Amino acid sequence: MSRASIELATQLRERAVADGTAYALIESLTTEVGPRLPGSEADARAVAWAKARFEALGYDKVWTEPVTFPKWERRSERAAVVGAHAQPLVITALGGSPAGDVTAELVRFDSIAALEAADPAALRGKLAFVDVPMARSRDGSGYGAAGPVRSRGPSIAARKGAAGYLMRSIGTSPHRVANTGITRFDADVTPIPSAALSLPDADQLTRLLQRGPVQVHLALDVGWNGEYTSQNVIAELTGREAPEEIVLIGGHLDSWDLGTGAVDDASGVGISMAAGHLIAQLPQRPRRTVRVVAFANEEQGLLGARAYADAHGGADVIARHIIGAESDFGAGRIYGFNTSAPADQRATSDAIAEALRPLGIDYLQDQGSPGPDISPLAAKGGAWGWLGQDGSDYFDLHHNADDTLDKVDPDAVAQNTAAYAVFAWLAAESEGGFGSAPKAAP
Amino acid sequence: MSRASIELATQLRERAVADGTAYALIESLTTEVGPRLPGSEADARAVAWAKARFEALGYDKVWTEPVTFPKWERRSERAAVVGAHAQPLVITALGGSPAGDVTAELVRFDSIAALEAADPAALRGKLAFVDVPMARSRDGSGYGAAGPVRSRGPSIAARKGAAGYLMRSIGTSPHRVANTGITRFDADVTPIPSAALSLPDADQLTRLLQRGPVQVHLALDVGWNGEYTSQNVIAELTGREAPEEIVLIGGHLDSWDLGTGAVDDASGVGISMAAGHLIAQLPQRPRRTVRVVAFANEEQGLLGARAYADAHGGADVIARHIIGAESDFGAGRIYGFNTSAPADQRATSDAIAEALRPLGIDYLQDQGSPGPDISPLAAKGGAWGWLGQDGSDYFDLHHNADDTLDKVDPDAVAQNTAAYAVFAWLAAESEGGFGSAPKAAP
Ligand SMILES: [Zn+2]
Ligand SMILES: [Zn+2]
Repeated sequence: MSRASIELATQLRERAVADGTAYALIESLTTEVGPRLPGSEADARAVAWAKARFEALGYDKVWTEPVTFPKWERRSERAAVVGAHAQPLVITALGGSPAGDVTAELVRFDSIAALEAADPAALRGKLAFVDVPMARSRDGSGYGAAGPVRSRGPSIAARKGAAGYLMRSIGTSPHRVANTGITRFDADVTPIPSAALSLPDADQLTRLLQRGPVQVHLALDVGWNGEYTSQNVIAELTGREAPEEIVLIGGHLDSWDLGTGAVDDASGVGISMAAGHLIAQLPQRPRRTVRVVAFANEEQGLLGARAYADAHGGADVIARHIIGAESDFGAGRIYGFNTSAPADQRATSDAIAEALRPLGIDYLQDQGSPGPDISPLAAKGGAWGWLGQDGSDYFDLHHNADDTLDKVDPDAVAQNTAAYAVFAWLAAESEGGFGSAPKAAP
Repeated sequence: MSRASIELATQLRERAVADGTAYALIESLTTEVGPRLPGSEADARAVAWAKARFEALGYDKVWTEPVTFPKWERRSERAAVVGAHAQPLVITALGGSPAGDVTAELVRFDSIAALEAADPAALRGKLAFVDVPMARSRDGSGYGAAGPVRSRGPSIAARKGAAGYLMRSIGTSPHRVANTGITRFDADVTPIPSAALSLPDADQLTRLLQRGPVQVHLALDVGWNGEYTSQNVIAELTGREAPEEIVLIGGHLDSWDLGTGAVDDASGVGISMAAGHLIAQLPQRPRRTVRVVAFANEEQGLLGARAYADAHGGADVIARHIIGAESDFGAGRIYGFNTSAPADQRATSDAIAEALRPLGIDYLQDQGSPGPDISPLAAKGGAWGWLGQDGSDYFDLHHNADDTLDKVDPDAVAQNTAAYAVFAWLAAESEGGFGSAPKAAP
């Protein structure tokens, strides 16, 4: 890495930590577009917003690429305990749930293993209630552990004949907000209405069950409804020497519908858009191309990222995707950096780590993973960078109504922007790489 | 005050701080009955619950007294920004609001004074949006300051021809919960649909208004619907020497419907019920009667308390209501004590203050006021006691969906119970009084 490149990285870092562009973008997207459920009317407004913003921010090229997917709608949802302890419950349907109106007795499970072990005779016609708490942690590892409650639980319950599925939200908020998120039903089961309870409501049901049988009425008017074509919105700063080599950063433009998608993931979009914008203001373009992608429909299965990898993931193209990094873990400060580069190709990673250190970012060479929308490229052999955000509070907000602008700290956003700008600039300036090489198809 | 009485107060205090009865009552009421909107099906369940609990807790007499009031119902409610920035809003109808379905432009006011000064031509057919933040404080003084936004705002807007009324919730929660509460329309105006926004939603509308006109759709299916007769539930420990003299403590049994009324006011009911229960376990009854009242329908205008004062507020009876204190400010620790006793009748107050001091309670002789349900008695000349709770977090929960059991600290509840037990015991043991004397009608 040249001395001049490092000096410009320092300038970039110092300018970025004092720059409000990313926060202003987050404010604009969450305020003007609001929630951005894939396929909703707001999806198209978000695409138009991203295109216009990229164009205004000094990128050399801006374009869109289509992403087609089935559309899921949430029209109404409610639930209540019925009978002697009648009372309403705060719930939200899981994405992918079918509609349904069920009144049935609860059968509680404190783990997915317990649900799997259940006798179908005990579940038939009942509402499965899976009540697994999620642990709070900086790296969000509790999310992975609780994940199967949402991803696999509904299918397991459906296969055993349950009439519906209720789960404790995968989240850490003690407030009366329920966390949605996608679930997929196995092909061999008939989907059943499936919803998540706020944590206080899950606790309430557990207390009621200690007193005797509990009947719940669950009424969901939600479901798949046709197809929709959204767009990945893509912008580039064209590399001055090796324009065909690409350093990719980004976030996802869609969100769930309950909040305004501020930490998930207007923040990632704003941070990566602003990082490119700051690089665009340097006296010269980086050696390689810096590409910023606002991915479509991450939430329902990385559909924009898969479309991108299909379009740009040929063996030749993977080698030219030098590295990719996505900001999709909220708006907390970045505490750690790493890349997937193998041991004999760490020079550029080492230089980036050095330039990130003044931001309070440690070089954590045994940690990290590709962001969700980078993972389809990574599966094909693309290298990834990890700029690890403090996610201690992320699951207070993730996929629930509390994911709103007031939860975003402008100073943390500026630190993130500085990190992404330094990372993208140095990765694009470097002559070295990170080991991107096409993998044989698995 | 006899040395024996003081010694028993010490025993009572020490037993109470280690006693879980009050918390168990709060858990039971909020879990088994849940929300207790006056006139709802749960109102009757709450009355039955209170009667059964008093009977099980060792009181000498338990009875109910009818309280009749108009019934207000919340059937459904929703709101959304429409147009170019379309997005849903988290709102809740104010108690007393009529039904209505309005789509209109917002006109924002940052104070009630600004609303009062508005030209009716600017408001006619529009939605008034009053956006006044509430300050957080230990004594809840911000609530009084913001109060007119809910109590008077809707009538002012209606008189000027507004089609509906939206207000920033009177509350301090940064979460996506809106705070309800009663409003009253002046007799000379046609009521208009009126609702409160969560704080993030109020901020969102203010940001959108900075960009241009904003249209909102407000659809409330709520309203008054007939009459209902609930009950004040009353229990006594009969005084051993002066049974006709009454020391009254209590809370209110009703709640708003969004949470489970844990801090407002299952806590007050549990604390006062348990305080009497602990006194009942002493070797002898206090000299005077200790009466515990679970008041009906406080939330819609102190209707249970007014019925009680009508039934028991004759000039002769006021003098025999030696003092009254209500716990209705949540479940925070008590930090201050005072009574309304005049300067020449402070001996019993001084003795109580001394016995409360080990609980961390200061004798704040220039502070305090009667609890809401004591105020009709106080207006007639009844003396009041004040056991001031730390309300710093109370308005994060008050009248919104977050008022649930998990927000109640069992240790703080035990401290409260100890304070009420000591207060009621010593007030009932004393030969002295606090200056209760019938006032001439105003
Ligand atoms: Zn995301
Ligand atoms: Zn209250």
